[in-house]
Amino acid sequence: MKKIAIVGYGNLGKGVEAALKHRDDMELVAVVTRRAPETLKTKTGVRAVAMDDILSLKGNVDALIICAGSATDLPEMTPSLAKNFNVIDSFDTHAKIPEHFANVDTAAKAGGNIAMISVGWDPGMFSVNRLYAMSILPEGKDYTFWGRGVSQGHSDAIRRIEGVLDARQYTVPIESAVERAKSGEMPEFTTREKHLRECYVVAAEGADKARIENEIKTMPNYFADYDTTVTFITKEELDANHKGLPHGGKVIRTGKTGLDFEHNHTIEYSLNLDSNPEFTASVIVAYTGAMLKMYDKGEIGCKTVFDVAPADLAAVSREEMLSHLL
Amino acid sequence: MKKIAIVGYGNLGKGVEAALKHRDDMELVAVVTRRAPETLKTKTGVRAVAMDDILSLKGNVDALIICAGSATDLPEMTPSLAKNFNVIDSFDTHAKIPEHFANVDTAAKAGGNIAMISVGWDPGMFSVNRLYAMSILPEGKDYTFWGRGVSQGHSDAIRRIEGVLDARQYTVPIESAVERAKSGEMPEFTTREKHLRECYVVAAEGADKARIENEIKTMPNYFADYDTTVTFITKEELDANHKGLPHGGKVIRTGKTGLDFEHNHTIEYSLNLDSNPEFTASVIVAYTGAMLKMYDKGEIGCKTVFDVAPADLAAVSREEMLSHLL
Repeated sequence: MKKIAIVGYGNLGKGVEAALKHRDDMELVAVVTRRAPETLKTKTGVRAVAMDDILSLKGNVDALIICAGSATDLPEMTPSLAKNFNVIDSFDTHAKIPEHFANVDTAAKAGGNIAMISVGWDPGMFSVNRLYAMSILPEGKDYTFWGRGVSQGHSDAIRRIEGVLDARQYTVPIESAVERAKSGEMPEFTTREKHLRECYVVAAEGADKARIENEIKTMPNYFADYDTTVTFITKEELDANHKGLPHGGKVIRTGKTGLDFEHNHTIEYSLNLDSNPEFTASVIVAYTGAMLKMYDKGEIGCKTVFDVAPADLAAVSREEMLSHLL
Repeated sequence: MKKIAIVGYGNLGKGVEAALKHRDDMELVAVVTRRAPETLKTKTGVRAVAMDDILSLKGNVDALIICAGSATDLPEMTPSLAKNFNVIDSFDTHAKIPEHFANVDTAAKAGGNIAMISVGWDPGMFSVNRLYAMSILPEGKDYTFWGRGVSQGHSDAIRRIEGVLDARQYTVPIESAVERAKSGEMPEFTTREKHLRECYVVAAEGADKARIENEIKTMPNYFADYDTTVTFITKEELDANHKGLPHGGKVIRTGKTGLDFEHNHTIEYSLNLDSNPEFTASVIVAYTGAMLKMYDKGEIGCKTVFDVAPADLAAVSREEMLSHLL
């Protein structure tokens, strides 16, 4: 039974707690928090440990699952903690992955530990599927669509607008683009042609809704490059209909085979998720198991989902794999 | 540049030849055949070698890709050749995989070689996807659907009926079952509820079509457990509309997460293939590259797709993977 601690107790940390509850090869022994630990009551009753006391866990846990933000927390926390612990994170700032990898790799090797970064569904399962599909159909093109699902970053951006009390933003793939992506014609898409952005906004009483709508639709990086709809709703409607965190998406690759590339093929990997944080957590917990198997075989340093053989992910024996899964 | 020989020059062998033509890290150096080699003209002009002379290739090729039948050829050929060569096959008799694995493993280890069995899309990519999905959503259920596509085994079975000149059988997934499989209700299906069988038959002049139709529909193992349609067509219609070997299918897993399993998720991997043998060949060629990387790192013995880390499949550098694929 491997002993696990969670670092950070937001939506993702709670998802990891739930996933670990159902595993019989790993147990949660602590939640590490920057809050005062006596104020944190975990859902499963596991004890909270102050971040300042995290070294008290050294030697008592097999891995830390770090559930913190990619913008500022993970670039510091993951390398720092990798010196003393086996660690895994879900770092998702794609452009900064090489730098994060290098920092975590150096720290983990210095500590004789194993680490894994950028685990989840994108980066994560979508990355693995892009790599498999590209390797099988090298003459081809791939497309990633996200949604329909809640983008927390875009929802936050709307909430920062003056006069907005609350908001929820859904990223919606454009069905006709998905169909064209699967067709084999290998189209090029603009940003606007792939996804729509649907916004549900609760405005303060007396707020200028026309101004809010305009500020959303013209916001650079977040909305200006998309067709965006803005719907004003009441706080009650938002709570009744938009409280969940569903998400999903698909990776599609079309490619050609044959002496003269005369045949077309389409590979599609698609996710439809009721709870984005719980699914991400389930991926991370599965890879934590794999990472600890690799550590037990003597591997150290930073790894990614690309380095994990499927056999190490499975909680079944080789005999079972050969008899029933292959 | 790795040197490859193909053993067997049917549809699959020709697909491997086409896939290798477009690789810049592997080259085809010979096709090994049980026919008289001077009678075999390969599509790319590569030389043919008689099966009896196969040991003349020892030391001159990095791997043999064995493109022969699972019923009688591969159980003998793969272990026998693994004593002298790195080998890969697409053995697809699911029930006999453990036995085949053990035989190939013993032979490959005795020869200091690496081997990989059961590579393709099912077994192969579908197996990998069943394993990933099961590992991420352990509380769940998976479903495999095949088609719409040509089953060569079922087409052959129809051709053996008296009065049949030619035939093509399509396996067709039942759309309502696919939708129920994705729904999260985790249904149980009978064989008849998942797939239909569509048969296109060319009958000899004067043959008793009612008898042929009845013999097809009641044939044990092949058709008796399915709803089957039989359509008689002319030889010209068959040649015009049913000469291709399209196939495909999907692996669907639904599963639950949350402290009390309150959220549902669906993972789907789906293939839509113009040419079953060429796609299978493309998977095998990708895994041949991975197998030879593993061999160069010192690994020997029998492997499966479960043992291959995605990073070994990719024909790109680690920097490229971290920067653009993760």
